[in-house]
Amino acid sequence: MASLHSDFVSNAWYAAASSSEVADRPLPCTLLAQRIVLYRSQSGRLAALRDRCAHRFAPLSMGDIQGETIVCPYHGMAYDGTGRCQRVPGQNGAPAGAVVQSFPVLERFGLVFVWMGKAELADPAALVDIDQYAAVAAGGWGLSRGYSLFKANWLNIADNLVDPAHTSFVHQRTIGNTAAEDVAVSASESQGVVTCGRWIEGAAPVPIVKRFVERFSRPGCLVDRWQFYHLKAPATSWVDFGAMDAGLAHTPQEQAAAPYRVLSYAFLTPRDASSTHYFSFQLRNFATRDAAVTAEFEQLYKATFDEDRVLLEAIQREEDRHPGLRPVRIASDAGVARLRRLIGTLQQKESEAAEK
Amino acid sequence: MASLHSDFVSNAWYAAASSSEVADRPLPCTLLAQRIVLYRSQSGRLAALRDRCAHRFAPLSMGDIQGETIVCPYHGMAYDGTGRCQRVPGQNGAPAGAVVQSFPVLERFGLVFVWMGKAELADPAALVDIDQYAAVAAGGWGLSRGYSLFKANWLNIADNLVDPAHTSFVHQRTIGNTAAEDVAVSASESQGVVTCGRWIEGAAPVPIVKRFVERFSRPGCLVDRWQFYHLKAPATSWVDFGAMDAGLAHTPQEQAAAPYRVLSYAFLTPRDASSTHYFSFQLRNFATRDAAVTAEFEQLYKATFDEDRVLLEAIQREEDRHPGLRPVRIASDAGVARLRRLIGTLQQKESEAAEK
Amino acid sequence: MASLHSDFVSNAWYAAASSSEVADRPLPCTLLAQRIVLYRSQSGRLAALRDRCAHRFAPLSMGDIQGETIVCPYHGMAYDGTGRCQRVPGQNGAPAGAVVQSFPVLERFGLVFVWMGKAELADPAALVDIDQYAAVAAGGWGLSRGYSLFKANWLNIADNLVDPAHTSFVHQRTIGNTAAEDVAVSASESQGVVTCGRWIEGAAPVPIVKRFVERFSRPGCLVDRWQFYHLKAPATSWVDFGAMDAGLAHTPQEQAAAPYRVLSYAFLTPRDASSTHYFSFQLRNFATRDAAVTAEFEQLYKATFDEDRVLLEAIQREEDRHPGLRPVRIASDAGVARLRRLIGTLQQKESEAAEK
Repeated sequence: MASLHSDFVSNAWYAAASSSEVADRPLPCTLLAQRIVLYRSQSGRLAALRDRCAHRFAPLSMGDIQGETIVCPYHGMAYDGTGRCQRVPGQNGAPAGAVVQSFPVLERFGLVFVWMGKAELADPAALVDIDQYAAVAAGGWGLSRGYSLFKANWLNIADNLVDPAHTSFVHQRTIGNTAAEDVAVSASESQGVVTCGRWIEGAAPVPIVKRFVERFSRPGCLVDRWQFYHLKAPATSWVDFGAMDAGLAHTPQEQAAAPYRVLSYAFLTPRDASSTHYFSFQLRNFATRDAAVTAEFEQLYKATFDEDRVLLEAIQREEDRHPGLRPVRIASDAGVARLRRLIGTLQQKESEAAEK
Repeated sequence: MASLHSDFVSNAWYAAASSSEVADRPLPCTLLAQRIVLYRSQSGRLAALRDRCAHRFAPLSMGDIQGETIVCPYHGMAYDGTGRCQRVPGQNGAPAGAVVQSFPVLERFGLVFVWMGKAELADPAALVDIDQYAAVAAGGWGLSRGYSLFKANWLNIADNLVDPAHTSFVHQRTIGNTAAEDVAVSASESQGVVTCGRWIEGAAPVPIVKRFVERFSRPGCLVDRWQFYHLKAPATSWVDFGAMDAGLAHTPQEQAAAPYRVLSYAFLTPRDASSTHYFSFQLRNFATRDAAVTAEFEQLYKATFDEDRVLLEAIQREEDRHPGLRPVRIASDAGVARLRRLIGTLQQKESEAAEK
Repeated sequence: MASLHSDFVSNAWYAAASSSEVADRPLPCTLLAQRIVLYRSQSGRLAALRDRCAHRFAPLSMGDIQGETIVCPYHGMAYDGTGRCQRVPGQNGAPAGAVVQSFPVLERFGLVFVWMGKAELADPAALVDIDQYAAVAAGGWGLSRGYSLFKANWLNIADNLVDPAHTSFVHQRTIGNTAAEDVAVSASESQGVVTCGRWIEGAAPVPIVKRFVERFSRPGCLVDRWQFYHLKAPATSWVDFGAMDAGLAHTPQEQAAAPYRVLSYAFLTPRDASSTHYFSFQLRNFATRDAAVTAEFEQLYKATFDEDRVLLEAIQREEDRHPGLRPVRIASDAGVARLRRLIGTLQQKESEAAEK
């Protein structure tokens, strides 16, 4: 499996934890096969260090936060947020090598992001913009959240997120139905974002739409619905999904006025070559302040992602058993092909930079 | 462990499931280190396919049966019983490579058998004949069944099934006792079947005989009992075991008239190099329609096979730790030596055919 | 990991079990990556054999003791305490190769020790002497016992046992406190024993001392306490730990008269490269016949060793993930450096002897 590690794209912001998880105790996490400790110092400063004391390799995450430092549980060596050792009990000063690696951190959307590549390239502008997120506080959009660990390589999950076609088969209990089985998908790419989508016209609404829009749940009701899957390479996904009365014009104005619209964000963070953190939130345009709807949304999206997870984990096990397998391509793979090319370019750029 | 895989004999019928397990849902199973899906189409046709969609490697066993096809759970590709793809949703026709391997299947003795070698060599006549099985329906013989997974290489289990001597030590609570410890075993071979057996004369009956024959359970009662272990290479075993009053002639006629006789069949199917499916049934000549006896027989034979299993699994772990171990041979290994030679010949024939 | 196995020092007595565990059933154990069976024959003779029948590799520990022999559970072959086969059922005599390796054994301090190196070098005098152990029966010292399995390489545990400094951080709930954080440790070596220690003067007593000495538990009470950590290479440790009123002379006489003194012995036995048996007992100079104190001591020392164990197991996992890691050394590592040199010399002597 070792060779797959070179598949990671390092120069990117990766979601590592929710903001609320990084409180008064150090938090260990594994990102891109590296063990990291996140902590907030007493002054509130967020830091990400390699989770290994330089002395005898004890996990710093098993230690304590003291002032601005994190203190090793074994012999009390204290490191600041830049990874420099500020104290070695029993002696004056610290030996030259008493340093642990630190990583740039960024907090946004209620998540903590870590930059796993070259620190000098870390740019907050590289993170996706989400205008609607700012409108949550004022009730403009409703917010629900989720987290899952997928025991699957991140690339297979990214494939899934530029692949609206699979919803007709995998998600018949939630966000898909058989009406769309044969509706073709368009794929395009612009500025590092792959977009795949389709309109399904004059079709029965899918279960989740029926559940939340009363008039769409009536027998015989038909809607026009859209699915647009965006993936900003390497691993930030958002799905624009909605339903309107059948026959209306397919314009941004009508989409903005639709009774059901959800923007579903997913931040994939490779844990290692065969498992992936899946941080997600959904912004909905209805019942925006209704806590019961939020709770039900979180449960329904968890169920939906589990439908993907079970399948992607089975595929991962098969790929692990047979490393050389080559897929047969079908028409709905157009987005996947674009995405893999795009990521391949990023990977190559990084491996060329590493060789210099 | 990889090299041990070449030890499988492929050109044989291997029990894969009981008939009743292959109903309205696809059934995954692993045979000879290959993952297979068994299914019955709506018309009742039995099929065995490689359990992996050609597109993105999803397990077909997680999909549905539709008409004569099995449908992939990920994107709805439908394969018929020959493994050809009959439908790709969202496009016309199927790409050239959209094929999965199919395997010959055969249903007999309430079991589903799969031929894992060259399809053109699959011959129903290669399966063992069991005249007594046909007599079960009319009450001529009583039938009990069992299944165990042994975490042991199939060859070590096959050894055990041409080795009546071990019963005196391993099975003292069920089918053996100390009376036979020093009774020698004869070994012979004919037409691909190794036979090892012995008569134990004028000895106390073993526990299972005492349990079911009232007069043999009386204090001081002595019997003549026989154990004949047959193994048709590579992996079909039957044991002819019975007890009669001490001193009677050891003739087929007296054996047929004995108050206790059991033909115990075992179909070994390598799951992989270090685990083996053990499908079994027993035919008994007494209480043939008594469901309570059947239930107790199933429990007793499960206990007996567990005595073997615990030991064979410990041996397997030791062989895994020390791959180069060479056994010291003793007198009772005569049948094992014949069996290993016979299987070696089959393996060599297959590897020579593979090289051509 | 295989290369680490050569790190074992074979020519030493290793604790394998407590005396009471080796009773009327054979006892399997793994020492230095080798599987051994311990048994007491009917005449009471203790034996240690390789736990593998020469015939078909069944574990002898799954068999029975009969007279002076241990009997294989598979075919009844019986081995005596020297490892020679005395019986093969079904034949006269035993084949030439029917021998299993035997190991020298020694019973002392309520423990069974096995010599894993060359039998001709096994010398009872190589085991540590403990005068105080003999005084337990007469109530001169109180005795408590413990056992833990550490999933860590034995060398990292040995390091821990010549490292009094870690107690200030790891054991603040039991045998350490922050008063000693900056008190330097001296290290010396004599006749194969590394000794590291310090006096902590005029400091608050540590929790375990407060618990058992009433006057040391009073608010504001200060004591002088000592910690002397001895390790006889390769893997026998004893810690001399006590507390007296602050200001008394630091002489053997005052130490002998101190209200709290504990000699804590640990016998480390590598199970394999990444796990270690940790047999221990403590001799205390107070409440020597009080069973409740013994029970509480066993619980408190278990808790103390668990504090080490959790940390050492985390370090082991990190070393397994990154085999090439090199520690940064700090002042308190002086004893560790001496110990590693000493053990390195023993290892080299053994590997040179093996090459001859």
